[in-house]
Amino acid sequence: MFSRIAIVGAGTIGTFYGARLALAGADVHFYVRSGLAEMRARGIVLRDAGGVQTLPPARTAVYGSTVEIGPVDVAIITLKTTANDLLATLLPPLLGPQTLILTLQNGLGSDELLARLFGAERVVGGLAFIAAVREAPGEIRIYTAGYVTMGEFGRPVSERVRRLVALFRRAGVQCEAVDDLAEARWRKLVWNIPFNGLTIAAGGVTTDRILATPRWEQEARALINEVIAAAARFGHVIPADFIEQQFEHTRRMGAYQPSSLIDHLAGREVEVEAIWGEPLRRAQAAGAALPHLEELYTTLKRLTATRANMSTNS
Amino acid sequence: MFSRIAIVGAGTIGTFYGARLALAGADVHFYVRSGLAEMRARGIVLRDAGGVQTLPPARTAVYGSTVEIGPVDVAIITLKTTANDLLATLLPPLLGPQTLILTLQNGLGSDELLARLFGAERVVGGLAFIAAVREAPGEIRIYTAGYVTMGEFGRPVSERVRRLVALFRRAGVQCEAVDDLAEARWRKLVWNIPFNGLTIAAGGVTTDRILATPRWEQEARALINEVIAAAARFGHVIPADFIEQQFEHTRRMGAYQPSSLIDHLAGREVEVEAIWGEPLRRAQAAGAALPHLEELYTTLKRLTATRANMSTNS
Repeated sequence: MFSRIAIVGAGTIGTFYGARLALAGADVHFYVRSGLAEMRARGIVLRDAGGVQTLPPARTAVYGSTVEIGPVDVAIITLKTTANDLLATLLPPLLGPQTLILTLQNGLGSDELLARLFGAERVVGGLAFIAAVREAPGEIRIYTAGYVTMGEFGRPVSERVRRLVALFRRAGVQCEAVDDLAEARWRKLVWNIPFNGLTIAAGGVTTDRILATPRWEQEARALINEVIAAAARFGHVIPADFIEQQFEHTRRMGAYQPSSLIDHLAGREVEVEAIWGEPLRRAQAAGAALPHLEELYTTLKRLTATRANMSTNS
Repeated sequence: MFSRIAIVGAGTIGTFYGARLALAGADVHFYVRSGLAEMRARGIVLRDAGGVQTLPPARTAVYGSTVEIGPVDVAIITLKTTANDLLATLLPPLLGPQTLILTLQNGLGSDELLARLFGAERVVGGLAFIAAVREAPGEIRIYTAGYVTMGEFGRPVSERVRRLVALFRRAGVQCEAVDDLAEARWRKLVWNIPFNGLTIAAGGVTTDRILATPRWEQEARALINEVIAAAARFGHVIPADFIEQQFEHTRRMGAYQPSSLIDHLAGREVEVEAIWGEPLRRAQAAGAALPHLEELYTTLKRLTATRANMSTNS
């Protein structure tokens, strides 16, 4: 059914899920912006605490252009949102009449952009909860395999989402369907907005330092309260005990660097608009006051401004 | 105060915490059972998602005998419990009149053994919540830095425990003192007993497969209920919502291999007595019936029996 798959952007996330799908038998085609020669020569290597999984070069189909791939059954978007301006060019060659577009991108905005460009009926949104690092092109280190959730854009779970979930599960990825994609995105922001942001704003510290410093811990709570209140304006009721769950979960992680901090410290672009800017604008448009988020957004724009026009490895 | 420190057993845990303490300025001496030449030549390298920390060879004091180390302020025991028969020989050369013994070992039994051998007044117990792997002697990959808790053996938190906590915190380790060490150990067993055990018993699967398979998920719940009921017999009240927290936490981890499973798959000894045998015996002696734990313990003894007399890298 979903036999022919394109991965649009073979960074950490795209390389990982694409390789797992290919290892499970899917016909996966990787569009990459950098590292094409290395991936063709060496294939894909996934390393975790349990060992190594290898997709050999002969089974690693890598392309520098989506025209070479042609129409697929599912296009999985794993570009960083900072490269979303490329989607209007990259996607049309991949689209046949029935092609689904699954975006696994962070924050808010990609679902709507893809719906506007290619039709809402094509779009499925997903959230990837995973801690992994691309150590070299095609070489992924998985710290926490985590899980994926996915749902229809603006509609309840459908048969095709259930089939996508089954596809990921066959590939050994823990995966669940969600009825309310928008709510799932806001729930993820409850963690990403404070912890991805404050670890950068506090000068490049790990999450445990945010928890251990009363000033930053209080700031995290204030941000979480603002995000939960904002989500409520869109009808997403996030229960109060969700806050303490976030802190307990974060405490267990110890000295953790969120992905945005890793990007920032490595000199790569940070997804400031998708994670902070777009949620702020939507919440303000709905009448919410978010002074803490507004200040954090301004700080992050300033701290990440010098590389705003640098090209990146997605 | 705690300037001179011995690490007894520089496997994953000992190498990691010892290196972090040394990098923070402590005078750390590593007793190792294997890999001495490699550690002397290359020092210690800690790798995590954020990058690399190196303790150079000149600052990596490694010994093949504790006699060469001599008395220290704190002896940190990070041997696997399967090597606990060595403690009576290894520790005396490290002990001066004021030497503290901090055991970071798994399961039940080490606190009592050390107290019996060297006096309860010396013993502080700790629990290390960390996901890390020793990739080579002196080379540690940290998947989740996690945290440490520690407390007095049979007494409430003391000034010296607070100083030990401060020592670990200065080394960048998230660390908390606990008033009831025994309760902390039972709480950790609520996760380790089902998930370290069932992933082996189910044939070497990851934790997500336990959650996804009704038979194993029910077995995990039955084991958790038994462990909580057993803990209650010793006065440790573990609230009911702790169970769902364990499942939620495990769900977030995705395809995770517990440390016992990693040991088992690598052909190393599994800490069957400390994690399953000793808790079972204590709970039965206190009048509890634990048919699920009893069966799991029997299964694990059988599955790990062939290597019971192999020597191991601690």
